[in-house]
Amino acid sequence: MEKNYTTQMDAARKNIITPQMEEVLKQENISKEFLLENVAAGRIVIPANRSHSGLKASGIGNGLTTKINVNLGVSKDVCSFSGEMVKADLAVKHGAHAVMDLSVSGNTEQFRKRLIAELPLVLGTVPIYDTLTRTKKEVRDITVDDWFETVETHAANGVDFITIHAGLTRKAISSLKKAGRLCGIVSRGGAILVEWMEKNGLENPFYTHFDRLLEICRARDVCISLGDGLRPGAIHDSTDGPQIQELITLGELTRYAWEQDVQVMIEGPGHVPLHEIAMNMQLQKKLCHGAPFYVLGPLVTDIAPGYDHITAAIGGAMAAMNGADFLCYVTPAEHLRLPTLADVKEGIMAARIAAHTGDIAKGIKTSGHRDNIMSRARGTLDWGGQFNTAIDPEKAREYRTSSLPSHEDVCTMCGDFCAVKRMENLL
Amino acid sequence: MEKNYTTQMDAARKNIITPQMEEVLKQENISKEFLLENVAAGRIVIPANRSHSGLKASGIGNGLTTKINVNLGVSKDVCSFSGEMVKADLAVKHGAHAVMDLSVSGNTEQFRKRLIAELPLVLGTVPIYDTLTRTKKEVRDITVDDWFETVETHAANGVDFITIHAGLTRKAISSLKKAGRLCGIVSRGGAILVEWMEKNGLENPFYTHFDRLLEICRARDVCISLGDGLRPGAIHDSTDGPQIQELITLGELTRYAWEQDVQVMIEGPGHVPLHEIAMNMQLQKKLCHGAPFYVLGPLVTDIAPGYDHITAAIGGAMAAMNGADFLCYVTPAEHLRLPTLADVKEGIMAARIAAHTGDIAKGIKTSGHRDNIMSRARGTLDWGGQFNTAIDPEKAREYRTSSLPSHEDVCTMCGDFCAVKRMENLL
Repeated sequence: MEKNYTTQMDAARKNIITPQMEEVLKQENISKEFLLENVAAGRIVIPANRSHSGLKASGIGNGLTTKINVNLGVSKDVCSFSGEMVKADLAVKHGAHAVMDLSVSGNTEQFRKRLIAELPLVLGTVPIYDTLTRTKKEVRDITVDDWFETVETHAANGVDFITIHAGLTRKAISSLKKAGRLCGIVSRGGAILVEWMEKNGLENPFYTHFDRLLEICRARDVCISLGDGLRPGAIHDSTDGPQIQELITLGELTRYAWEQDVQVMIEGPGHVPLHEIAMNMQLQKKLCHGAPFYVLGPLVTDIAPGYDHITAAIGGAMAAMNGADFLCYVTPAEHLRLPTLADVKEGIMAARIAAHTGDIAKGIKTSGHRDNIMSRARGTLDWGGQFNTAIDPEKAREYRTSSLPSHEDVCTMCGDFCAVKRMENLL
Repeated sequence: MEKNYTTQMDAARKNIITPQMEEVLKQENISKEFLLENVAAGRIVIPANRSHSGLKASGIGNGLTTKINVNLGVSKDVCSFSGEMVKADLAVKHGAHAVMDLSVSGNTEQFRKRLIAELPLVLGTVPIYDTLTRTKKEVRDITVDDWFETVETHAANGVDFITIHAGLTRKAISSLKKAGRLCGIVSRGGAILVEWMEKNGLENPFYTHFDRLLEICRARDVCISLGDGLRPGAIHDSTDGPQIQELITLGELTRYAWEQDVQVMIEGPGHVPLHEIAMNMQLQKKLCHGAPFYVLGPLVTDIAPGYDHITAAIGGAMAAMNGADFLCYVTPAEHLRLPTLADVKEGIMAARIAAHTGDIAKGIKTSGHRDNIMSRARGTLDWGGQFNTAIDPEKAREYRTSSLPSHEDVCTMCGDFCAVKRMENLL
């Protein structure tokens, strides 16, 4: 069937409810009018490549529940596509909304196609990495056509959103050189682009050829996730000149993309101390005209390798409360190794907790409903009800059964001293 | 040597620097004058029983780093004092500042004495529970003397602070009955007191005999931790009439205690949605005249049993940023069972992360220093430096060595794509 619109944004502007919008309306507590208005204005994105037929669409943005993304993909040192496929299945099982395939080794296209064919989740990629893997060239030798051929391949494969660090301009690099950062650049895509620009003495190819990018993305409805190549990788480097310089450019590119009906979200930090998070969220919403914000963490301290799912949950909850729309999970393995399956599960759970607590705090309707069901079950010592309502029933059940009390209505922490039991007949 | 002061507060008011204050000054980045002024005014407490000779004192309150407490103790169902002693050792090893012994079974006095003799940490207890264990009476049959004899025993044993729910008055219970809570009372001490009051038709004995409590506490310098017997146990029940009613009374009792030179801190929630935490901290500081705030969590959602160390870390970080001075750890076992050793370690680490990120955010001087050392090590791919600066060097090292890269300067997440390595010679 021929569609009478190009992108979800174009459809919304024509007042057309797409099948993907129907799906979003089923999941969220909003009206058709609200959704149309916000997709048309760019405040909500629905990343849904026109050829991703098995996709269960998710909306990301204003007034919607906070979504979470699971990063996976092989590296040269740990290169098992089947292992990464199990991680993708974990993402589905444990309630993630999106998966980013960050593979940088081996036959990436085959794996990407398999993910798109088998996974119902939104899929994102970073064509910049894949250009190196695909062409096997040195960074300096990559041509502008090489960059865009990768983008075209990903779009044709059915990828729903792509990270492109189009705002990392020479001006931003010049700001970086003066900034006195402790960790310089920690974005892989950002580092590759800077190397290309410096070695060739050229401007960012995605900035100079932004129209070419928009053309590809409009044709397939690929949402652009404007990457923050200069995101801070240390508390010390947070909210500095280079970061904000790049954000200003991302805001300009956002408006330009919207003129072409191309969906855009903005990627954000990174490492940010807790007291700077609210301000960072407000600044992004302002400079990027209300475009959805996709944050990595933020991590609120640098000193907790092995526990960065927790530092990210603290930052992510604070970010979501203050307007972040999409959280990239962080696993306990961050900064140390490619995550194992156990790491992936811990990372997903921490991100879901952050998103959910953020939703309660940002006033998403009915988000506290499940908490109330749990509390009612707790208040009546209904253990079955508690397990059924838990975000991880398996783990909760396992914990309890590993240490059973002599009276089955309480638990081994308090036993007879259980306050709930004691008050049962009194109040 | 005879001391020319009773409590730390009395000493500060006489402009005397005690050995415990010297210890605090070694740990914190504040002046003698600041410490004296704040201890005298009640905004800082130094819980240090006059007979606790092996104590390494900690200060809790305004301008100091956020401290963390580890709960332990046996229940009827899991009753191994030696197992709890290992938890106490874990608390020391992993950097907790205080331990609360919440034992409710067996020979509690023997265990308490052992903790005081062997542990250098601040020790807290809840004499209300122990009155039941000690007297073996039904709650209704306990006499006023029974309650106070337990307090005297704990004070004589050398306990540094005791939780007493003196603000849980009949007025507060009447407010509770009208509140429509989902989880009623979740405080064990609170539930016991309410049962006693309701069955005997009497007012809270610690409220009516507050002077008797102050006399015992002044004589031994036991800091009173005014318990919140009506703390919310559900997001739904947060910041309601009964909670605030009790807090008002705690504020009144605080001023009264200060007149007798008795040190006081205030205990707080519990379960609080993220957006209500800042307000709760401000309200406590206002109603309780700047007394230090000791919070349990707060947990920012009810639906994550098995992961409540994370929900508490989110709430604790937010609380610390907004003025909480002392965080009670929460383990993954909360709501499910008495914690194992592994649970205890996870709980301590999560609480330390929350406290540290809160300290950066509340502007404690030099609190970001260690983050900068870590980031400098990351920025130069100095792995040894990263391990040495990590809050858990063991875990960080184990993660990395479980998955070694082919080039030893990077890690298996990015391999050759390491942004830091790529930028090494470029910028």
